[in-house]
Amino acid sequence: MIDWIAPARRKLLSRLTPGDPSLTALPIDDPLNDSATAVRRIIGALARTAPDDAALPAAAAELERIAEALESRTRPVRAQLSQMWQGEGIARHDPATGPENPIAPPLTMRDAGNGWAEGVVTLGLPYQGPPALVHGGVSALLLDGALAVANELWGSGGMTAQLEISYRRPTPLYVPLTVRARRLRRDGRKVYTTGEIVADGQVTVSAQGLFIVTDRPGAGGAE
Amino acid sequence: MIDWIAPARRKLLSRLTPGDPSLTALPIDDPLNDSATAVRRIIGALARTAPDDAALPAAAAELERIAEALESRTRPVRAQLSQMWQGEGIARHDPATGPENPIAPPLTMRDAGNGWAEGVVTLGLPYQGPPALVHGGVSALLLDGALAVANELWGSGGMTAQLEISYRRPTPLYVPLTVRARRLRRDGRKVYTTGEIVADGQVTVSAQGLFIVTDRPGAGGAE
Repeated sequence: MIDWIAPARRKLLSRLTPGDPSLTALPIDDPLNDSATAVRRIIGALARTAPDDAALPAAAAELERIAEALESRTRPVRAQLSQMWQGEGIARHDPATGPENPIAPPLTMRDAGNGWAEGVVTLGLPYQGPPALVHGGVSALLLDGALAVANELWGSGGMTAQLEISYRRPTPLYVPLTVRARRLRRDGRKVYTTGEIVADGQVTVSAQGLFIVTDRPGAGGAE
Repeated sequence: MIDWIAPARRKLLSRLTPGDPSLTALPIDDPLNDSATAVRRIIGALARTAPDDAALPAAAAELERIAEALESRTRPVRAQLSQMWQGEGIARHDPATGPENPIAPPLTMRDAGNGWAEGVVTLGLPYQGPPALVHGGVSALLLDGALAVANELWGSGGMTAQLEISYRRPTPLYVPLTVRARRLRRDGRKVYTTGEIVADGQVTVSAQGLFIVTDRPGAGGAE
């Protein structure tokens, strides 16, 4: 394991313009962010491409060439790990909320007042489970991410200890989903947080999370 | 919503060679699968690329060009939805286990005997939460997927109704993770399933799932 830890999202919060309600990293005009955005588009397009499409062999060859070129220039994992945790680095790479991680839709959240962190996201075929519905595990990923963001509103991050997800109704693809979360209370090192996904005015999935505040710098305990 | 439903993974199982223990779609030599594999490599490489790397602007431009080309040829969502649920189509696109979905690591699972579905996967930086650790939501995604695969061993799929995830210890990146799941029992339309992630011989995350078998063709009830 690694022995240094940097502040993650708290730094992000502290660097935001006063009055800016953003709680997640925003897209920037930068070739890394642009690359991630393009890859996200490619993922979406591949999910809608016929396997026998005549353009695919050339696309595959080009993508392999780009993969090789990028792989030949990557930083060692250890070096990248220490770099990516500087400033808002990790928030940009988060698999739920990071604009520079093509896996993330991304879910962009803001301070909605009264302790709520909230964002709106529309998911397409790459996030599908049952036909035309969001994969249950993807809902869990977004909610875990949202709960963590809500905790950061209080400066108490911590590690997820327990997550209970209740699937109340199907969550549709191609419909704007409101994802929101709020810390309920803190009891010593334990933080209790709730969240939900809302589609067409109805809660489709809800989550209850228990987080443990650690002694790591930047991981909480600032209150 | 859509009104047709096709058989999903059950068809996959039925088409497997007798004796083949595979429970998830296998990679095939095909330009769509190759494209997804290359995109997955690009996602991994971008997570290890310095934002000021001199190769990035050209890569971003090429990726944007490929995105545009593919987007100009995609099938309408509705048509793709009906196509992708034919045969093992959807299993190939699953965000946890699908070889043709670059979001998926992918988690490949097999019948390990005694009702266990099991797979081994190693995750890199795109799946990171805390430093050098797997994102809690990613663990939830993999476990939800694994529980669904375990249910399919019995022919009873169904929708996730509840998922309880317990994070017992940190789950490391860059270490082979065993992900396994087993159906515990079926009580009418309710299916109870358990699963866990094991790293270095220790359970890092465990999951309990409740699934509801629906009346949809292919979604269960075959027992």
